Amino acid sequence: MRLTRRYRFSAAHRLDTPALSPEENRRLYGKCNNPHGHGHDYVLDVTLEGSPDASGQIASRETLDALVANRVLARLDHKNLNVEVPQLAGTVPTTENVALAVRRMLEPDWPLSARLERIRISETDRNIFELETNL
Amino acid sequence: MRLTRRYRFSAAHRLDTPALSPEENRRLYGKCNNPHGHGHDYVLDVTLEGSPDASGQIASRETLDALVANRVLARLDHKNLNVEVPQLAGTVPTTENVALAVRRMLEPDWPLSARLERIRISETDRNIFELETNL
Amino acid sequence: MRLTRRYRFSAAHRLDTPALSPEENRRLYGKCNNPHGHGHDYVLDVTLEGSPDASGQIASRETLDALVANRVLARLDHKNLNVEVPQLAGTVPTTENVALAVRRMLEPDWPLSARLERIRISETDRNIFELETNL
Amino acid sequence: MRLTRRYRFSAAHRLDTPALSPEENRRLYGKCNNPHGHGHDYVLDVTLEGSPDASGQIASRETLDALVANRVLARLDHKNLNVEVPQLAGTVPTTENVALAVRRMLEPDWPLSARLERIRISETDRNIFELETNL
Amino acid sequence: MRLTRRYRFSAAHRLDTPALSPEENRRLYGKCNNPHGHGHDYVLDVTLEGSPDASGQIASRETLDALVANRVLARLDHKNLNVEVPQLAGTVPTTENVALAVRRMLEPDWPLSARLERIRISETDRNIFELETNL
Amino acid sequence: MRLTRRYRFSAAHRLDTPALSPEENRRLYGKCNNPHGHGHDYVLDVTLEGSPDASGQIASRETLDALVANRVLARLDHKNLNVEVPQLAGTVPTTENVALAVRRMLEPDWPLSARLERIRISETDRNIFELETNL
Repeated sequence: MRLTRRYRFSAAHRLDTPALSPEENRRLYGKCNNPHGHGHDYVLDVTLEGSPDASGQIASRETLDALVANRVLARLDHKNLNVEVPQLAGTVPTTENVALAVRRMLEPDWPLSARLERIRISETDRNIFELETNL
Repeated sequence: MRLTRRYRFSAAHRLDTPALSPEENRRLYGKCNNPHGHGHDYVLDVTLEGSPDASGQIASRETLDALVANRVLARLDHKNLNVEVPQLAGTVPTTENVALAVRRMLEPDWPLSARLERIRISETDRNIFELETNL
Repeated sequence: MRLTRRYRFSAAHRLDTPALSPEENRRLYGKCNNPHGHGHDYVLDVTLEGSPDASGQIASRETLDALVANRVLARLDHKNLNVEVPQLAGTVPTTENVALAVRRMLEPDWPLSARLERIRISETDRNIFELETNL
Repeated sequence: MRLTRRYRFSAAHRLDTPALSPEENRRLYGKCNNPHGHGHDYVLDVTLEGSPDASGQIASRETLDALVANRVLARLDHKNLNVEVPQLAGTVPTTENVALAVRRMLEPDWPLSARLERIRISETDRNIFELETNL
Repeated sequence: MRLTRRYRFSAAHRLDTPALSPEENRRLYGKCNNPHGHGHDYVLDVTLEGSPDASGQIASRETLDALVANRVLARLDHKNLNVEVPQLAGTVPTTENVALAVRRMLEPDWPLSARLERIRISETDRNIFELETNL
Repeated sequence: MRLTRRYRFSAAHRLDTPALSPEENRRLYGKCNNPHGHGHDYVLDVTLEGSPDASGQIASRETLDALVANRVLARLDHKNLNVEVPQLAGTVPTTENVALAVRRMLEPDWPLSARLERIRISETDRNIFELETNL
């Protein structure tokens, strides 16, 4: 059985890669290349897989919430993804790369008996990214 | 191809297990342990898998709706999950256990040629439970 | 200018009035008269009216949130509206009466300079109640 | 990693098969058999699977949008699915068959390095169809 | 206090006025002028204004639902708005005119003690029409 | 009759006023004072009031869309509200002030016969700002 819990964070970013010229960056990323950045309200869905224990729960909601708050939201919420998130250093902060970073934040020393199965980030409801874990 | 149809039901419940002391129950379930209960508007998504027949349909919507209405909604909608649902007797009515009970209500004598593949219950849009079937 | 902030609470209730016979209650309230109660996830929208001050804000979100949390959510969230809410004693806990009770909880000693203008409660997205205040 | 992008189109249709008598059609399709047709606002989710390239993207959003606009939306948006869509000729335009037609529109000469994985069409939020691709 | 209840209907339409040439119609209505029609899933919100009676209700939900079902949904749901709705005869079935027709369907012999205050129709969530009544 | 059309824009901002010390700013705006900014996906609803003309429309959707695109979205979408929007210069870019700026962008030389009645901006679905116009 799978449990998915939903979290939200707001962040600013700018899409730009030093590998390309300013003109190529503009062509590649369009208005997301705007030099002063822009922002989004991201929706993060974290999915666990397991069986209900005697309490009838796959995992403690409280424990999962604290884990996501400490490891993910504290690093991403109300931040500028280009300059304030070490886990994104050296990458273009596309939502693809944000999802990979969230996986790297959650996988090590995963403390729950329920398996971390999937991470999904919606940049907007038109752009949704989904990633299985390695656990 | 998969067809998912959406249903809704409202119900009251209280999370509490006789295996624990009142204090431990309070710690484990938080405000969901409140003695007089509280309630939710649950969303139930039922997913079938099959191929369209000559009528262009995987399954008759009318037949599926009647099946879910008779076997599931009649037992859960506007009910108190702690005292009125025999299929939940002896379990804590977490949404995990409600999902397992819905699967037990739907699987036996499954009458459609399309396979029952998945059951998903959203307690709220922050808490979603998903369950493959054994069929 | 108006600012609306959204809150949520889950509660159980049963619709039944001692003024009527059991049969009349069943006819009047239908399945909402079910003796063991059922529940909903209510959405509460609180609307203030005012002008932005030097900080660019009609009202402090933090102050408004604390006010609604203390006066309303602490009394209604994860409660049974028939037996645990003194402000609803002696009334049938229809959403109409819940909205009137919320107004009675918020109006006295209204501490913000922005005017409390409107209260809206959605029982579900099909049933929405709206109430102007007396302030 | 999967990227899902969302598109919308509005169309009219009528469910009716020449294989059945008018009466049988009425019984089978109910009000969807109404002779003058009716319509829906369909939501189309297209899911790609791949790895982010140096630009941090699984696929260019612009390229994918142009592909879906040219191959799918230009043929379905603001159309009558019974008479204006050659890819649906000879079939009853149920959403099942519309999904199969969308797959036939997208698969041939798939030009992106990211794999086309899944097509999902929501007729309304109560009726969702999902289809893996053959690519 | 106001109660808003939400209803849905699906219908096909084509925007075209005999007062203009085919070319002018195309320019005015764009793809909504497509000769074979297209369709929408309309959302209808009906708002009543009144005070809760002894039962705690502004109006009986059952009575209001039956009224809207008989007077409005039976005439519009799964219909072609250009040819099947006498109340729209001689008008272009824009959502503006549909809203005016719904008001004409509901106002005469309004049977509830709660006042009919407002009608709102969402063609899509990007196009919303709102109309006060004359009652 | 009122027509509301919905638009979206993404932008970055930081809440900070030179009238206060860094510490007071932090206390007042909380994490919205984060020096590197953060962002939101804003929803803008523009409401017109008028009567349908012979074409059955209160206003041409195309004309209104072009007006909002040129006057508002071109200035706000994918921008940093602190440094790139002259109409916000000298103000803290709270959503209150953004709404006032949108009104200043739309009111002058209002070209439609339908009256501009109301502007509404949702920062998130928990924070909604509404403003009548002076027209």
